[in-house]
Amino acid sequence: MRIKHFSFAFILALLPISVMSQNRQMPVRAKIKKNFTIDDLIPGGSTFYQSNYAKRKYTAFWGEKCVELGLDECRLVNRTDGTAEGEQLFTLTDINTALSSAGFRMQHLYEASFPYSTDPLVLLKGKGKQALVNWQTKQTVWIQTLESSYEASDWNAKSRNLAFVKEHNLYVCDANGTEKQLTTDGTSDMVYGKSVHRDEFGIEKGLFWSDQGDKLAFYRMDQSMVSPYPQVDLNLDPEEGSRCAKVAPDRYPMAGETSHKVTVGVYDVASGKTVYLNAGDPTDRYFTNIAWSPDSKTVYLIELDRSQKHAKLDAYNAETGQFTATLFREDNSKYFEPRTPIQFLPWDSKRFIYATRRDGYNHIYLYKLDGNSATLERQLTKGQFEVFNVLGFNQKEKTVVFTSNESDPIGCALYAVDMKGKRTALGDTGGWHSAVLSDAGTTAMDSWAMPEGPIAHRQDLVDTSTGKRLTFMDSQDPWDNFNVPEIKTGTLKAADGVTDLYYRLILPTNFNPEEKYPAVVYVYGGPHAHNIDASRHWGARGWDIWMAQNGYVMFCLDNRGSEHRGLDFEQATFKHLGVEEMKDQLKGIDYLKSLPYVDGDRIGVHGWSFGGFMTTSLMTTYPDVFKVGVAGGPVIDWKYYEVMYGERYMETPQSNPEGYAASSCLNKADKLKGRLLIIYGGNDPVCVPQHTLSFIRACIDADTYPDLFTYPGDEHNMMGSDRVHLHKKITQYFEDFLK
Amino acid sequence: MRIKHFSFAFILALLPISVMSQNRQMPVRAKIKKNFTIDDLIPGGSTFYQSNYAKRKYTAFWGEKCVELGLDECRLVNRTDGTAEGEQLFTLTDINTALSSAGFRMQHLYEASFPYSTDPLVLLKGKGKQALVNWQTKQTVWIQTLESSYEASDWNAKSRNLAFVKEHNLYVCDANGTEKQLTTDGTSDMVYGKSVHRDEFGIEKGLFWSDQGDKLAFYRMDQSMVSPYPQVDLNLDPEEGSRCAKVAPDRYPMAGETSHKVTVGVYDVASGKTVYLNAGDPTDRYFTNIAWSPDSKTVYLIELDRSQKHAKLDAYNAETGQFTATLFREDNSKYFEPRTPIQFLPWDSKRFIYATRRDGYNHIYLYKLDGNSATLERQLTKGQFEVFNVLGFNQKEKTVVFTSNESDPIGCALYAVDMKGKRTALGDTGGWHSAVLSDAGTTAMDSWAMPEGPIAHRQDLVDTSTGKRLTFMDSQDPWDNFNVPEIKTGTLKAADGVTDLYYRLILPTNFNPEEKYPAVVYVYGGPHAHNIDASRHWGARGWDIWMAQNGYVMFCLDNRGSEHRGLDFEQATFKHLGVEEMKDQLKGIDYLKSLPYVDGDRIGVHGWSFGGFMTTSLMTTYPDVFKVGVAGGPVIDWKYYEVMYGERYMETPQSNPEGYAASSCLNKADKLKGRLLIIYGGNDPVCVPQHTLSFIRACIDADTYPDLFTYPGDEHNMMGSDRVHLHKKITQYFEDFLK
Repeated sequence: MRIKHFSFAFILALLPISVMSQNRQMPVRAKIKKNFTIDDLIPGGSTFYQSNYAKRKYTAFWGEKCVELGLDECRLVNRTDGTAEGEQLFTLTDINTALSSAGFRMQHLYEASFPYSTDPLVLLKGKGKQALVNWQTKQTVWIQTLESSYEASDWNAKSRNLAFVKEHNLYVCDANGTEKQLTTDGTSDMVYGKSVHRDEFGIEKGLFWSDQGDKLAFYRMDQSMVSPYPQVDLNLDPEEGSRCAKVAPDRYPMAGETSHKVTVGVYDVASGKTVYLNAGDPTDRYFTNIAWSPDSKTVYLIELDRSQKHAKLDAYNAETGQFTATLFREDNSKYFEPRTPIQFLPWDSKRFIYATRRDGYNHIYLYKLDGNSATLERQLTKGQFEVFNVLGFNQKEKTVVFTSNESDPIGCALYAVDMKGKRTALGDTGGWHSAVLSDAGTTAMDSWAMPEGPIAHRQDLVDTSTGKRLTFMDSQDPWDNFNVPEIKTGTLKAADGVTDLYYRLILPTNFNPEEKYPAVVYVYGGPHAHNIDASRHWGARGWDIWMAQNGYVMFCLDNRGSEHRGLDFEQATFKHLGVEEMKDQLKGIDYLKSLPYVDGDRIGVHGWSFGGFMTTSLMTTYPDVFKVGVAGGPVIDWKYYEVMYGERYMETPQSNPEGYAASSCLNKADKLKGRLLIIYGGNDPVCVPQHTLSFIRACIDADTYPDLFTYPGDEHNMMGSDRVHLHKKITQYFEDFLK
Repeated sequence: MRIKHFSFAFILALLPISVMSQNRQMPVRAKIKKNFTIDDLIPGGSTFYQSNYAKRKYTAFWGEKCVELGLDECRLVNRTDGTAEGEQLFTLTDINTALSSAGFRMQHLYEASFPYSTDPLVLLKGKGKQALVNWQTKQTVWIQTLESSYEASDWNAKSRNLAFVKEHNLYVCDANGTEKQLTTDGTSDMVYGKSVHRDEFGIEKGLFWSDQGDKLAFYRMDQSMVSPYPQVDLNLDPEEGSRCAKVAPDRYPMAGETSHKVTVGVYDVASGKTVYLNAGDPTDRYFTNIAWSPDSKTVYLIELDRSQKHAKLDAYNAETGQFTATLFREDNSKYFEPRTPIQFLPWDSKRFIYATRRDGYNHIYLYKLDGNSATLERQLTKGQFEVFNVLGFNQKEKTVVFTSNESDPIGCALYAVDMKGKRTALGDTGGWHSAVLSDAGTTAMDSWAMPEGPIAHRQDLVDTSTGKRLTFMDSQDPWDNFNVPEIKTGTLKAADGVTDLYYRLILPTNFNPEEKYPAVVYVYGGPHAHNIDASRHWGARGWDIWMAQNGYVMFCLDNRGSEHRGLDFEQATFKHLGVEEMKDQLKGIDYLKSLPYVDGDRIGVHGWSFGGFMTTSLMTTYPDVFKVGVAGGPVIDWKYYEVMYGERYMETPQSNPEGYAASSCLNKADKLKGRLLIIYGGNDPVCVPQHTLSFIRACIDADTYPDLFTYPGDEHNMMGSDRVHLHKKITQYFEDFLK
């Protein structure tokens, strides 16, 4: 699902650190502290930022040097004492003096970047332009138009060519400012230069410069044959014309139905010519994970058939568009999901690495190009853990730097592996790490969160050769002055009796073990996401804390089907989404009911998106277990979900009718007994309103009584003040019916 | 508003009789009786019909003779003893034997009719055909195609010509079965032969035969210039193609915006030619109340300008379409609303009657045609009462037979008036009467409901010359075996201090004067409707009874602005709908709070359509008075309502911005304090979803917390089992938050 429940990722990004305790238990705090307001806890709340933001510094790399980006100056980070001030490179005044000829000014330097390892050039963006300033000569040496209205853009630092999309059509602006329009038939139905296949298969963009920036690969998607979902624009504040609502059609290919057609073009700046990869009829084919050969002569991509069971790595001649070779194939009887392009070794243009879950976990493989084929040289990583992200290469040591959960299934730490497969942890592996590498990868700035303890977030300068760390910044827990409830984690056995599942349990604030509390389960449960991890407060959501403060036990369990636990764990749900997931959640309920302070007659459940599907499924499948549920933006029947994500896990309604029937909430509408509130974004383009509304219709026909709310004009997730309103609404519902 | 709250009218039609008591109070019943189920009380409930239907007989007139239409026979009604059997005309077997050549059979004779006063011919309809059977010769003498798929149709008995609309185009089929297609450009945007101007101005149809049936006047409406409201078809059960929801655009002209254009055509069967009335540019003009001269040579209509302040009765030459004359004009500084066409006297083709509220109440006026003008000869009725319907003419006595509320402001009784203005009540004036006249009007079958007493409904054969009545059928109260709560009515002073307003008060079933009960106000409050009348149980709604049984005091008050009380009473609300209405409702609240058994802290309010507007307005204008509200299909801001109804009462958003602002619920979203549930039909074409959704958006923005529900696929009112679900849902909300 493209957009996950927003607050989780957002809090992850904002909340970070400390030494992980063995029993994953946070000591009860003794001091009398203030209570949270909901604005303290929900993104969009008026005090959210100040109440949650663990202070950190902005940094960027200039070659191998780390630069601290300040409000009014940029300084090198001191490599012997990270916290001491390093050499000043330039001030905001310097920059604005230099920019006077460029027609824009900077307000701060937090977003400055250094595209050239050796040249004293800083890249700055503002007011429809980007510019390079030489901070030694204090001169603007180059300017290029870069309008915020561009629907997409991609810039190559080497060539300084910019590709962009404007009013649906594709343009290239070269380093001299010469603009060329590459297409004229772009529309909302013929989409150029943007992410395709609904952002699945790791696709996030549609413009891909070759390493040298001389050739541009780009996506083109014809979706004119796809059914338009009739989103309604309420037209609440028309500037002119009728105030009547308007239709805003959004092409949405539903599982088993006609899908869009994607082709890949290549534009050669020197010749000014565009060719399209000669791949044949694009019907029911996915072209994913585009990569360039270092010499700009070959485009690689992973093609997947519509069944998503058969993949191949194909090479195309970038000049002619002709198909060159299939380098290897990859098949899976359930599904194969490529999510990262191949990456050539910076020191060897005939070798590349490739990440796949071929052996059941996501691991890095080293391949050697061999004429028209590729030979597997070595599986570089191996074990019952998942490689998360390849951050880059340490070119000095010839290692791959990456993150994985090797040391803790719910953690994320830094590692390096050499070409022989020798793997080294880069310092502390506790907590949740996220790093940026220097140009040659010898250094990383690691920004990491600790689940417990007084320090919430730490920034370390890491020597990726030795793993040696220099602490650059420590941030205290911004919740230090608040009355924080006790947050615990642990494991339970899944319904299969063998698999460990992680849970998080939050006790009511000011917990009294003699009392009986209502409990609320927060659930997501789908692939590509997890809820319990070693980030700050074990990943607890702000709303969990709010509910704990309101007297609820809050519980969360990452069931089979969720991410980071290997392919079997994920594929346990294949072809019948929801069924195994619910069985696991019921194990969590057994545990909850075993707790003496939980009132087993007052158990609620809440989730969004896949979690909305889980909530609705749980309320209708186990009507005697859950008294109250709040389902947000739910999938109700996978037949209304899109082709790429939906068919991967469920195949098609035609080929898997039993699975669709078993997982459909429509067939269980008559079972609803407790109080269920369904909330959806009025213009949800992900889980379209047809899901929720078809369920409401089914309940009416079945004489059952769900409740409903909508956020008119909102999409899959509520943002800003709407998000606060949403969580007050959700809370109100539990207060009305579970308290 | 085109469609009123459904159940009210429906129960009116089904529930009828008795002698009206002076104090309008029903004695508490002593016998132990059974309680109602909700299915007993709500239309669409499985037991509603049997629990509510006061038995009656089907009748029709054959000339001056009244015929009882039975399951398997038709008999004349005995004129000396209405309840004794009269002469048998024919049996179902006779008819089906005769129809064997016609290709269809009848299952019963309840819908037989007798179009010819003297010939023994009965008209029967079935299976795409209509036929005339001579019951003396037992032969089918004539057959014509009459498909149920026709979008509209109108048949003239004299000529036996049939006009109909099929796939948007207009056809005429003559008595010989020759079909002629009159138009080819009909679409959903170019509408032929149907009601126009959104059924306002008394318009109910679009096909009008002349008296002789030789010429057909018809409406044509071009609405291609009107904004299409994007209704969404959820496409829940597609037979083929995509299962994705679809847009179903519905042209909806909003107040102050571009409206449709209506023209009137006349087709001459003899010449086969169509002319359009030469009225000029139809922009912003309403052509209403089409009438024919008795000689088929002239078409009359009442034209109203868009401001609805200026009307004129115009005559057009039916052969050439040329404008002939404006016979008279009628103006009103607020608005003038013509609702009935002129009617020529059957005995004098130069004189016609015309009903207007010119003097403040709806009365009948006699005009004489005088060349190109019309002279007012006499105001036939006069007084502080309203003429409801002209039923027809007693040709023997030369009187007009009509209904009015002369004897009781909340009653409806039969009267006749002669050409001198002498008015006679036709028998009992208590209760609520509804009659059908014989061909020459000497006799009427009066079907009437009594508000109280053991007899619920009575059918009388009335001599319209003498007023003498012969009781044909008495029906017992179908609620006789139920535990019916006490139902009272009375009057209160309006907020103006002088006007009497009628209320209805229902005590909780098994009322205990020592208890404190919550009270719920049911409100409509808009023009063209009332809630309290002398029909069965004083017009109490089934849901009122259900709520009374659940322990609520139920209250209803017809405020200023509602119907049947004269023009000043209605126009008190002009240009600021809701404001005066609410002041009157607050007088009702004062009264409720004065009752020792009402808990003034637990007052709720519910209403639909205009009543949904009132409910939302009351909840946001008087947030400390009402604890709980349920608003159905509400108007939220009159700027989203349609041109004809909306501009009549509110003028345009451009000309009356203060009035629109004062009556808008959007501007009061921040005042919401109590619990308000808004329910709307997912495809409401009357109060489009934009109303409710814009209010929800305004509340979110204002940090207030309404609740919401929708009936996907339903229009302005819920029907059948959805209606039962709706009332369970509404009840649940009061049980959740007001109990």
